[in-house]
Amino acid sequence: MCELLGMSASVPTDICFSFAGLSQRGGQTGPHKDGWGIAFYDGKGCRTFHDPAASAGSPIADFLRSHSIKSEIVISHIRKANRGRVALENTHPFLREMWGQNWVFAHNGQLRGIKKLPLGAYLPIGGTDSEYAFCWLLGKLRERWARPPSDRMLHAMIEKLALQISTHGVFNMLMSNSQSLYCFRATNLVWLTRRTPFGAATLVDEDLTVDFTKQTSPTDIVTIIATRPLTSDESWSTTPKSTLVVFRDGELRTAA
Amino acid sequence: MCELLGMSASVPTDICFSFAGLSQRGGQTGPHKDGWGIAFYDGKGCRTFHDPAASAGSPIADFLRSHSIKSEIVISHIRKANRGRVALENTHPFLREMWGQNWVFAHNGQLRGIKKLPLGAYLPIGGTDSEYAFCWLLGKLRERWARPPSDRMLHAMIEKLALQISTHGVFNMLMSNSQSLYCFRATNLVWLTRRTPFGAATLVDEDLTVDFTKQTSPTDIVTIIATRPLTSDESWSTTPKSTLVVFRDGELRTAA
Repeated sequence: MCELLGMSASVPTDICFSFAGLSQRGGQTGPHKDGWGIAFYDGKGCRTFHDPAASAGSPIADFLRSHSIKSEIVISHIRKANRGRVALENTHPFLREMWGQNWVFAHNGQLRGIKKLPLGAYLPIGGTDSEYAFCWLLGKLRERWARPPSDRMLHAMIEKLALQISTHGVFNMLMSNSQSLYCFRATNLVWLTRRTPFGAATLVDEDLTVDFTKQTSPTDIVTIIATRPLTSDESWSTTPKSTLVVFRDGELRTAA
Repeated sequence: MCELLGMSASVPTDICFSFAGLSQRGGQTGPHKDGWGIAFYDGKGCRTFHDPAASAGSPIADFLRSHSIKSEIVISHIRKANRGRVALENTHPFLREMWGQNWVFAHNGQLRGIKKLPLGAYLPIGGTDSEYAFCWLLGKLRERWARPPSDRMLHAMIEKLALQISTHGVFNMLMSNSQSLYCFRATNLVWLTRRTPFGAATLVDEDLTVDFTKQTSPTDIVTIIATRPLTSDESWSTTPKSTLVVFRDGELRTAA
């Protein structure tokens, strides 16, 4: 199994604290030693960092833990290889351009027989079932619409496709198009929204407490979503099973 | 104008030395302060780093100058904005998947009227003429072939498309599909190949000399290509004008 971390925020926000916790699971407090990656949106642009080595001890992960990269949407993944060898091209999150937007995808779980589904406009570069599922999903969206449809139609279609992928196994997924954070839970996905009055929080995986009142302004709204709670002293909610959940600007939106 | 740097090598090679020189032109010894980016291939995978800030003084550029990332193909770009505002999505190199391969592209020059060309399967995310030209070029390749053709056919077609783009302005270009490094010169593109017996070289832009005999093994072959010579004590050749030049495993290949 792998670990997922996502963020949706109303203002560009530093995810160092949450990433510090997640990245310790990569070979330190967890068994997820087969690579990690993270995507930070900056408007329509997107920065990605990938490393097929364990995140605990990775120089790039150290760099990210110590340098603030502020972003409104973040998707991160640390990997325990199930399918596909340990290699850069098999390291989440995966990235494709569709409709002139950067689409980013990360997956937790195993999918059986997914590679029998016929692909459309997108082909995988690596050998993972996850990248294959992403390519199939985007291909279906693009086959249906040459340009972005309404949110309502798009959300309904993503949920339908995610349900279809779920018939192949465990499909916990985070995806974004640079505007919305799309989340789909098969087994593990929890979230919380931090907003005023901000308090303090302590990481489960590292002896680190952050007082958010010192790092935020009163209007900030920041949602964190992960496969397991990252902090021990906050209240995490489980997302509804087999339902597309959409966050935008840190707020929960009605999905399909 | 911008600066380009490319590398093709027979074994994974550290480009720190050349990047140290190039990155100084980003706001220090040169006027190219509007962002920079670099792509390192690792097999079929590709790491990219982009920063809309100047490379001289960029924490990520500092990290790359001090940490060895070995790669067989590298494409880097530092930007002086002409078209498209200073933003992450306008920062080269640009990346797309085609035929299950990572295609990376960087361009130096200005192109007028390029946005009147009809696009195919690829749409730009940002507003630069460069990304538009890349999308048009890939769209044309993909319209012609659903899977990779022979090298001979592919090279001839890329040259033909590059010549067509050149009618819109200055088109110095570096591009790769993870196997070959494609180079096209309108005005500025020089190259050299380092191989045994290796000597020492001194950067034009920084007081730094490297003795390659200490960093290489006798069978290594490393080609560096750039818009201007990076070293003062090596012999740089200009690539033929308006001709596709292809490097693979550090060696010059017959192009079209």
